[in-house]
Amino acid sequence: MTFANLRFGRSARLAAAAFAGLGIAAFAAPASAATDPETAFIFNTLSFLMHGFLVMWMAAGFAMLEAGLVRTKNTTMQCLKNITLYSVAGIMYYLIGYNLMYMDVSGFIGSVSIWSAADPGITADGFVAGEGDYAAGSDWFFQMVFVAATASIVSGTVAERVKIWAFLAFTVVLTGIIYPIQGSWTWGGGWLSEMGFSDFAGSTIVHSVGGWAALAGAIIIGARKGKYVDGKINPIPGANLPLATLGTFILWMGWFGFNGGSQLAMGTAADVRDISSIYINTNLAAAGGVVAAVILTQVLYKKIDLTMALNGALAGLVSITAEPLAPAPGLAILIGAVGGVLVVFAVPLLDKLKIDDVVGAISVHLVAGIWGTLAVPLSNGDASFITQIIGIVSIGAYTFIFSAIVWTVLKVTIGVRIDEEGEHDGLDKAECGMEAYPEFGTGSQRL
Amino acid sequence: MTFANLRFGRSARLAAAAFAGLGIAAFAAPASAATDPETAFIFNTLSFLMHGFLVMWMAAGFAMLEAGLVRTKNTTMQCLKNITLYSVAGIMYYLIGYNLMYMDVSGFIGSVSIWSAADPGITADGFVAGEGDYAAGSDWFFQMVFVAATASIVSGTVAERVKIWAFLAFTVVLTGIIYPIQGSWTWGGGWLSEMGFSDFAGSTIVHSVGGWAALAGAIIIGARKGKYVDGKINPIPGANLPLATLGTFILWMGWFGFNGGSQLAMGTAADVRDISSIYINTNLAAAGGVVAAVILTQVLYKKIDLTMALNGALAGLVSITAEPLAPAPGLAILIGAVGGVLVVFAVPLLDKLKIDDVVGAISVHLVAGIWGTLAVPLSNGDASFITQIIGIVSIGAYTFIFSAIVWTVLKVTIGVRIDEEGEHDGLDKAECGMEAYPEFGTGSQRL
Amino acid sequence: MTFANLRFGRSARLAAAAFAGLGIAAFAAPASAATDPETAFIFNTLSFLMHGFLVMWMAAGFAMLEAGLVRTKNTTMQCLKNITLYSVAGIMYYLIGYNLMYMDVSGFIGSVSIWSAADPGITADGFVAGEGDYAAGSDWFFQMVFVAATASIVSGTVAERVKIWAFLAFTVVLTGIIYPIQGSWTWGGGWLSEMGFSDFAGSTIVHSVGGWAALAGAIIIGARKGKYVDGKINPIPGANLPLATLGTFILWMGWFGFNGGSQLAMGTAADVRDISSIYINTNLAAAGGVVAAVILTQVLYKKIDLTMALNGALAGLVSITAEPLAPAPGLAILIGAVGGVLVVFAVPLLDKLKIDDVVGAISVHLVAGIWGTLAVPLSNGDASFITQIIGIVSIGAYTFIFSAIVWTVLKVTIGVRIDEEGEHDGLDKAECGMEAYPEFGTGSQRL
Repeated sequence: MTFANLRFGRSARLAAAAFAGLGIAAFAAPASAATDPETAFIFNTLSFLMHGFLVMWMAAGFAMLEAGLVRTKNTTMQCLKNITLYSVAGIMYYLIGYNLMYMDVSGFIGSVSIWSAADPGITADGFVAGEGDYAAGSDWFFQMVFVAATASIVSGTVAERVKIWAFLAFTVVLTGIIYPIQGSWTWGGGWLSEMGFSDFAGSTIVHSVGGWAALAGAIIIGARKGKYVDGKINPIPGANLPLATLGTFILWMGWFGFNGGSQLAMGTAADVRDISSIYINTNLAAAGGVVAAVILTQVLYKKIDLTMALNGALAGLVSITAEPLAPAPGLAILIGAVGGVLVVFAVPLLDKLKIDDVVGAISVHLVAGIWGTLAVPLSNGDASFITQIIGIVSIGAYTFIFSAIVWTVLKVTIGVRIDEEGEHDGLDKAECGMEAYPEFGTGSQRL
Repeated sequence: MTFANLRFGRSARLAAAAFAGLGIAAFAAPASAATDPETAFIFNTLSFLMHGFLVMWMAAGFAMLEAGLVRTKNTTMQCLKNITLYSVAGIMYYLIGYNLMYMDVSGFIGSVSIWSAADPGITADGFVAGEGDYAAGSDWFFQMVFVAATASIVSGTVAERVKIWAFLAFTVVLTGIIYPIQGSWTWGGGWLSEMGFSDFAGSTIVHSVGGWAALAGAIIIGARKGKYVDGKINPIPGANLPLATLGTFILWMGWFGFNGGSQLAMGTAADVRDISSIYINTNLAAAGGVVAAVILTQVLYKKIDLTMALNGALAGLVSITAEPLAPAPGLAILIGAVGGVLVVFAVPLLDKLKIDDVVGAISVHLVAGIWGTLAVPLSNGDASFITQIIGIVSIGAYTFIFSAIVWTVLKVTIGVRIDEEGEHDGLDKAECGMEAYPEFGTGSQRL
Repeated sequence: MTFANLRFGRSARLAAAAFAGLGIAAFAAPASAATDPETAFIFNTLSFLMHGFLVMWMAAGFAMLEAGLVRTKNTTMQCLKNITLYSVAGIMYYLIGYNLMYMDVSGFIGSVSIWSAADPGITADGFVAGEGDYAAGSDWFFQMVFVAATASIVSGTVAERVKIWAFLAFTVVLTGIIYPIQGSWTWGGGWLSEMGFSDFAGSTIVHSVGGWAALAGAIIIGARKGKYVDGKINPIPGANLPLATLGTFILWMGWFGFNGGSQLAMGTAADVRDISSIYINTNLAAAGGVVAAVILTQVLYKKIDLTMALNGALAGLVSITAEPLAPAPGLAILIGAVGGVLVVFAVPLLDKLKIDDVVGAISVHLVAGIWGTLAVPLSNGDASFITQIIGIVSIGAYTFIFSAIVWTVLKVTIGVRIDEEGEHDGLDKAECGMEAYPEFGTGSQRL
């Protein structure tokens, strides 16, 4: 009935890691011992809030990235989907998700109830130490913004043909049920946590989960008309690349919150030192992803592909997310660079399989997410490849199957795909009744 | 002569609220008692700075929102107005506004003088407790960014036909005089504060004030040519909806600063717990506004209107701003949803009244601002509907009349409206001499 | 072998300034004496992290500013250059730059080695006071984002004709060698620091260095085809002014981190009070720059030039960067306003000299950077005009000559300039193979 779940799940992993010979000094004392307990409480809470607003900002990043990579005729809809999914995610996580993930987790699932804050340490007589290390609400806020990221990933993949209400219905299930249940397995202190599965900030738990849900959607909804014709893959360029670039920068900035806040504490010198290391590794992994993608596309295609550079940054970020603390900076660059390389190969591979992923989200979040999770034992002696694989496979199978069922139910009920005329004219006209750029003339590539 | 005004005004209200049975544990001890006084001083100041830069960021949000919702031919001007008004607001608030609002407030007005910092607690011998709970400059910075928000609201409503120099002259008066004087009534410890008027972060004091000033401007300047013709209301679509979406996300992010920083302290566990609650309620109210607007426009129009979803988010944010601390999260969702509903009805209503509000700012900031202020007693037992109405009416009448006088004086002197040719060609050509998008061809809807 | 360099360089300057009669109370006690040492350690580190992510965000600001000010045919490339240079800067600063700048500085240069963190105060037995005032990694992160800013400045000037690989090669040398060596002279505790050269956050060390490197590039690469023809200067308008406006707002926001974080400490009330003053001055200097440019272009040209208003903001920010702490707010407005005036005159002057600076970066960063550095003695009694001039000239000569050599070597080897056909068609087609806005039709001004 307390938030002990969180402390013994997501943060117990961290404490264990600290003792595991990563070249980081281990502390016997609890996190809030050295500084005054109330001061530590404020720092810990501030970390959730500050890093939380950075992760919230990622919702804007996904929106801009996706709005820049779809065609003009679907841009209004992509904006609408992103702001609405962020809204739905918050409400669902309040109504059911958080407690399903963190409250009284039985091993496989938490409790079905509405979240409410409890801060027993804050009393009429002042602060009482030992009754919680941070404000419960700050933790809820921080966890909530992670859910939204998962839904944003799906939004990008299934763009340009999914029906808005089918997408929103899926988002309700994903953010309220699918994500929280698997989240409870590791971060809620469930069975994967007990096995020792290690995923610091969610390469698998957030990013691959979004990727698996997107993959199920892409398969069941099918490719856009005109994408794969007579064995030929037709490129469909995004309409606004500076917007996509802005989105990537926003995501990069937000990732300092995503990974840095996942330290879950800032109340000791050791914690804030660890957050510093996390910022560095997060930044350098993204840098490694960019440089790798830039060089590789130059070598492969004799041109540098901006969208691959952007996806390289994101793949680097996803790759380091499972373990942003333990690697030395040089290793972080390498982990990110491998992520960048993977995405350059994964994007055309998916196209060969006729899996139509509009923004490359599966390549970035699922493929690099798997890689990042597998890379944890490279620097974290407490993790094992076997356990990492078990986590990847079990979370992947669960998410893909559950998502496929939901997409299928939606398909046979309200329908998941816009009709042909609507797809041809664009979702903006069909479902929003407004153009994104009504005054910009018809360019040569408008389809 | 000290900043006691602020402490007995804006924050005294908070202290009183804490004792008023909101389901929040009340503290007898002063805010900085539990932690070391210098540590609390740093936390309090940091809260103003961190939340202040988030509110500053809202200036960019307004700029993008408005630049996206005007036509291409007025986009350069809209950008220019927004960066200039933010600049003017800061300078005016330094020269006269802050002291008018917070220094030696007599009940109805403060003193006419230039602001300067005083931090008696920081001495050559080190920090002296009890001589101020935060750096005076951090408070100035935080209050300053609020002024700019008020001016941004006006900018959106009167877009596409106001003369730049008339607008800037109005901005000088609004940010230097109109806003600070009414601000002194409540936050400066004046007569409304003594009556018990409750407006935590400014649903009325910031947002409605902007809305009233905008309303006066819209009436006196008149509608855009072609907007209302032969009893018909012609929609004039915005030129760049992703930009408007970005602006909304920026404002949403900035609102964590707007409401969170209005706690005015972060130096105790209780304060940072309260800020956590404020973040949650702020986020969920916006989410409620989005979901309400999305569902309502689908029901009413069979299409989902993105601009209404964006305005729904903003209306939700404005609605919760008068009391973001006391409501339970579920109530925050409801308060925001009502805001979202109101805006969907207010926008066409204003059009019926031939009040031409280019971006819907009056609906969002004035209408939802009134609603939010009225909703305070729903969760804050210390507030009364009567007092709230007195505050809304008195601030509204004062602002509307004062603004109308200023707009009228400007009209009969330098003129407030661009000539017909300039309006037809666009303000960008007439007053800036440059196009916002010189290379993007003429689309079907370019007017 | 320790980070003492930093403390005796960049921050020793600050400590000295505090005693120098700036109207700021001087402290005999060390920075972390008043609060608990571990608490101060956390605050100091948090300041680097929080202000660091704001400065990182400036990379997005430069990207948007430049993407908005180039033509559509070069927009993809400008996005690519900005995200890649930020990546390269981080990797180079890790591999060589940081230690060259801060480790065992001999007076003119530090050591050639890879950076690694050392936090002797964080031990297995807990925190040990006196062994470092902040996490070493947080300082690295904060310094790193400054390097990237320097490279971004160059990117803007040489846009629309530089070869991408030549630009990236130059970036490697600039961020790995040129910038760090001159940085060691002042911030690393080298000879300029010993002379008393004062540059709080880098008007010269960051901004002018970028400007000098850009100037060398602009001269050696030459002007864009069609810019200067038969003694006539052809204006080449930017393609997306709202994007440029967004970039300016991002930079403005990031500058609170740039200047605020350069206080290098937040662990005492005096430090956080100083940061408050820095925020105010930073904001008001930008405001002064905007208002000056707006008024001046109205007077000179009878129109208000938005790009000058944006550059006025940036010039104001650059101007205050050398001394954002000591001036009273009124002086900060003036310093920024002079910066805004300078840029309005410098831009056409450079055109007369046929130095083709696509975004006005030399005017903003070099000219205003020199002005800001010269303005330090106006408020900081510890600085002298002579020493400031020595610093400006020595750093300028070093950077310009070193940069010119590198650009020349690149010119005679791989070539620095795209061929005529590539320039005509645009870098996006020539080197990226993708359009930034493939669907937006051809406007009247597309060149």
